[in-house]
Amino acid sequence: MRTHPLVDITILGGGPTGLFAQFYAGMRGASAQIVDALPELGGQLTALYPEKLIFDVAGFPQVLAKDLVKSLAAQAAQFHPQTGLPAHLQQRVIALEESEGHFVLVTATDRFPTRSVVIAAGIGAFAPRKLPQAFAEPWYGRGIHPVVTDPEEFRGRNVLIIGGGDSAFDWCAQLRDRAQSVTLVHRSDRFRAHAATVAEVQAAAARGDGRVSIHTFHELDAIHGDTAITGVTLKDIKAKTTRDIACDVILPMLGYVSDLGTLLEWGLTIAKDEIQVTTTMETGRPGIYAAGDITTYPGKLKLIAVGFAEAAIAVNQAVHWVYPDKKVNPGHSSNLAIFGQKDD
Amino acid sequence: MRTHPLVDITILGGGPTGLFAQFYAGMRGASAQIVDALPELGGQLTALYPEKLIFDVAGFPQVLAKDLVKSLAAQAAQFHPQTGLPAHLQQRVIALEESEGHFVLVTATDRFPTRSVVIAAGIGAFAPRKLPQAFAEPWYGRGIHPVVTDPEEFRGRNVLIIGGGDSAFDWCAQLRDRAQSVTLVHRSDRFRAHAATVAEVQAAAARGDGRVSIHTFHELDAIHGDTAITGVTLKDIKAKTTRDIACDVILPMLGYVSDLGTLLEWGLTIAKDEIQVTTTMETGRPGIYAAGDITTYPGKLKLIAVGFAEAAIAVNQAVHWVYPDKKVNPGHSSNLAIFGQKDD
Repeated sequence: MRTHPLVDITILGGGPTGLFAQFYAGMRGASAQIVDALPELGGQLTALYPEKLIFDVAGFPQVLAKDLVKSLAAQAAQFHPQTGLPAHLQQRVIALEESEGHFVLVTATDRFPTRSVVIAAGIGAFAPRKLPQAFAEPWYGRGIHPVVTDPEEFRGRNVLIIGGGDSAFDWCAQLRDRAQSVTLVHRSDRFRAHAATVAEVQAAAARGDGRVSIHTFHELDAIHGDTAITGVTLKDIKAKTTRDIACDVILPMLGYVSDLGTLLEWGLTIAKDEIQVTTTMETGRPGIYAAGDITTYPGKLKLIAVGFAEAAIAVNQAVHWVYPDKKVNPGHSSNLAIFGQKDD
Repeated sequence: MRTHPLVDITILGGGPTGLFAQFYAGMRGASAQIVDALPELGGQLTALYPEKLIFDVAGFPQVLAKDLVKSLAAQAAQFHPQTGLPAHLQQRVIALEESEGHFVLVTATDRFPTRSVVIAAGIGAFAPRKLPQAFAEPWYGRGIHPVVTDPEEFRGRNVLIIGGGDSAFDWCAQLRDRAQSVTLVHRSDRFRAHAATVAEVQAAAARGDGRVSIHTFHELDAIHGDTAITGVTLKDIKAKTTRDIACDVILPMLGYVSDLGTLLEWGLTIAKDEIQVTTTMETGRPGIYAAGDITTYPGKLKLIAVGFAEAAIAVNQAVHWVYPDKKVNPGHSSNLAIFGQKDD
């Protein structure tokens, strides 16, 4: 086991909320680090929808998810011009211990001693839900893409999208002008997607030009091909009939399996797999704060803009907890000499 | 009196919090308008420090206050491509009435009927505190600048700054390389400014090259000049001696006089001139929500990032209050067809 130096604040999660928490720790002059199970910073934004435009982050009429992550990382890195952002990636925390008056976050290989913790773990560790059909397994990485990282990859391809939620419809809408064809397959006719996007895709299918097709009450029955996918057989689950469709790419948009791991056993106040926090982002265990999508309280909205505010509050409370003589209130950024000195 | 059409949400205040509230109303398809006493959007950012760099807005490693206002206005205006942002400026609300089942915000000249209200009034109506010396009054607009809008205006000038707070020291620091000379005058030797900025200005004064001077325990005794200021007399309030200083610009940085007006009488829950809100931004009067610097609750931080989150929560609650069948939760912006349609 490698044991890292003791820091003031360890931020569990390197998504947008965790990145802004790291920035705020710098603002307060606290030593801090991010620990995340994923291989890259950005959380869901990087792992699930790097190419999606986001419209509801204040000050950005629109911003690509991956560009927002870059800006947040640069903002936090301002305090670490020499060393770069202190982030320990591919480190999945499996235990929280207490030792010698501080906490220790433990992963399979490392120990991270820390005076306080800010949990910004979003939906926890997550992975795209796999297709239930065993015959699909060998095609992962050879035509089945559980995550879309670059929509351009599918230009001119025949794309089969499986699912009835927002991701399924969003990718139908975004790929329909790029792909040769887009076929949506869903087990029922009930969609859990924004009504206007559903209407847009349905209107495109109604044109009947073969660019967009929707098959409700269908499921995947077989995948055809030798080294690459050439087509699939779909089964009508009501009529029990089958039909063959030519396609070379399958995007299973079946949601994500998330796993909060041992977090739920850390003595925090848990409500339905979320951490119940006070207005000061306290979790029920002194010295441990939470922010972002993992938290809940009356009126909670799971928005990036809300995660940012909670990150600022959590870090300022953590600073005050670690250093009781430091005020909770950070003052205004433009008054901070750490930035003013740059002009010299 | 001019009576405007009834809207779902009226946002009292066009600062950053109010602008993001206006954006969020658009996200939810609610009709909304901003009403503000100031002549321009942006609140304190525009009126008090348009040229200041802000470092603590998430996603911006740094941003000029005026540029942030522009982006926020553009973000909110996306929902109003034809008419532009619905903002009624130079309209100071003097009363809140109820009529025919809705509220009416009343100004000296207009009536704004509205189904709900989001108060994002910051510190209320505010004005720079004037110099107490009556002889200074005629020089306002002729050498006395209560607000700095463009620091370049003072390049090569001899600047006298009066005050001992953050604004006084920030402008000393920002103008000392532009101005011919900067002289800080303060009635005591106790400064209410960030320690590192004070140290920076004191170090510059200690160099003794005449570029930066600090006079503590001094006050303004006379202003000299014919059509323009040519100098001042300063009085040492301990030694009772006077000294003459050449200068052509006076910046009184004495803080701001703020006035919440009749807001305090609207039946809201008030605590020390602030509105006490719940985690759903409720004010104690149904249908009236608040967000931003005017609110208080345990752990409240007066940060722009926090105001943004509160604006999103307040508007989503207001939408649910006006239309009980609409969910509080807005969903994710990237799923909204209003934006998706742009790509067509």
